[in-house]
Amino acid sequence: MVSKNQIKLITSLQQKKYRQIHQLFIAEGAKVIQELLQSNFELEQLFVTDSIFESINVSKKIVISDADLKKISCLSTPNNCLALFKIPKSKPVSNKGLVVALDDVRDPGNLGTIIRLCDWFGIEQIICSEHTVDVYNPKVVQATMGSISRVSISYVDLELYIQQSKCAVFGTFMDGKNVYKENLPNQGILILGNEANGISNTLEKLVSNRLAIPRFGNLKQTESLNVATATAIFLSEFKRKE
Amino acid sequence: MVSKNQIKLITSLQQKKYRQIHQLFIAEGAKVIQELLQSNFELEQLFVTDSIFESINVSKKIVISDADLKKISCLSTPNNCLALFKIPKSKPVSNKGLVVALDDVRDPGNLGTIIRLCDWFGIEQIICSEHTVDVYNPKVVQATMGSISRVSISYVDLELYIQQSKCAVFGTFMDGKNVYKENLPNQGILILGNEANGISNTLEKLVSNRLAIPRFGNLKQTESLNVATATAIFLSEFKRKE
Repeated sequence: MVSKNQIKLITSLQQKKYRQIHQLFIAEGAKVIQELLQSNFELEQLFVTDSIFESINVSKKIVISDADLKKISCLSTPNNCLALFKIPKSKPVSNKGLVVALDDVRDPGNLGTIIRLCDWFGIEQIICSEHTVDVYNPKVVQATMGSISRVSISYVDLELYIQQSKCAVFGTFMDGKNVYKENLPNQGILILGNEANGISNTLEKLVSNRLAIPRFGNLKQTESLNVATATAIFLSEFKRKE
Repeated sequence: MVSKNQIKLITSLQQKKYRQIHQLFIAEGAKVIQELLQSNFELEQLFVTDSIFESINVSKKIVISDADLKKISCLSTPNNCLALFKIPKSKPVSNKGLVVALDDVRDPGNLGTIIRLCDWFGIEQIICSEHTVDVYNPKVVQATMGSISRVSISYVDLELYIQQSKCAVFGTFMDGKNVYKENLPNQGILILGNEANGISNTLEKLVSNRLAIPRFGNLKQTESLNVATATAIFLSEFKRKE
């Protein structure tokens, strides 16, 4: 049974301002919840409709009906479980290896996919501009498929961070140098821009190496690649020689 | 003004069975419609709320209210235009260059993104299994961002097509050979599998070259990459030497 107050709390967590107040976020689906349980994230409460997650202490686990799950779920077709986790304390930003910097990426699916890609390619740190979509947005958590537990994500003043970093700064531009012909290092910052506007003018000035994925075919009319697929190709190029 | 019958027809086109009956599909947004108008697709009817697409003959163009656009749109936030185009006659499948084969890709966003990627990388032909999501699904059309007008997409019996093709057949598997170390040709068929189940057993038997994108990092727990981001990396690898 879920109380009215619980329903109110949980649905409020779909909004960033309430996540900040309560310092909690929602995770749905057995796979994502399993990965978070195995990581350093701290479980607040688990709601299940089936006999799953047997090892979780009953004080933290509430068995509810499908109808109640539908009331608290963010999904149009809810799974059989929903969990609340505590938002962890922000960690100092690491600049080990290649760091991915996101300049106002707004789409939750794109951020989730980029986190999953970073996890695959062994990128340990993502730094986001303050207007990048919140990593604890339920759609982002969902799209990471659990990778959120293995990649460190920080929100910072990107301009200040990059100015202080003294790293090589790579940015992606339509008129950049062919990424397939560049000698890419193991260390540095790779900036990916906003879906509609690309990298902002302020950050563009800090880019030391302008990169592009060349277009193929005769027509060459495709305007651009989606930011998540572009990230896939850039990370693959940075890592393929390792 | 949109009549009740027009609203009924247009909303019915969100379903494949009605698209097949009427041989029409929906495109929304100025960019997608513009690209389709410049291609071989034939316009049936254009609905606009603003003075855009001035060159389109008034017999084909109807100015409607925002409220009416909301009634016929598939989007939660409609643009300022919606068009119906005729579904073109199926063309014979080409096997020039690299052909991308999709084995039951179900998510409209994934298919749209893959079409956009193929356009970028100069892939002229995509062949889809009969259970792959319909390319004229409004969400697919939207996600292609216009690339649908430049890539040929056919639905066939994939097993039969591959058996008859006599090409090298590449498939993507977790245990395949490191794609970064393979000598990839300019010609062949690259199979991408279903989001949940990968490539079916029937098609797996026809694969001559099993490929994988290696995982990096210490943890190596990421289960898999999304099919659209995997396609991005594979196409990049096939094309980067050109």
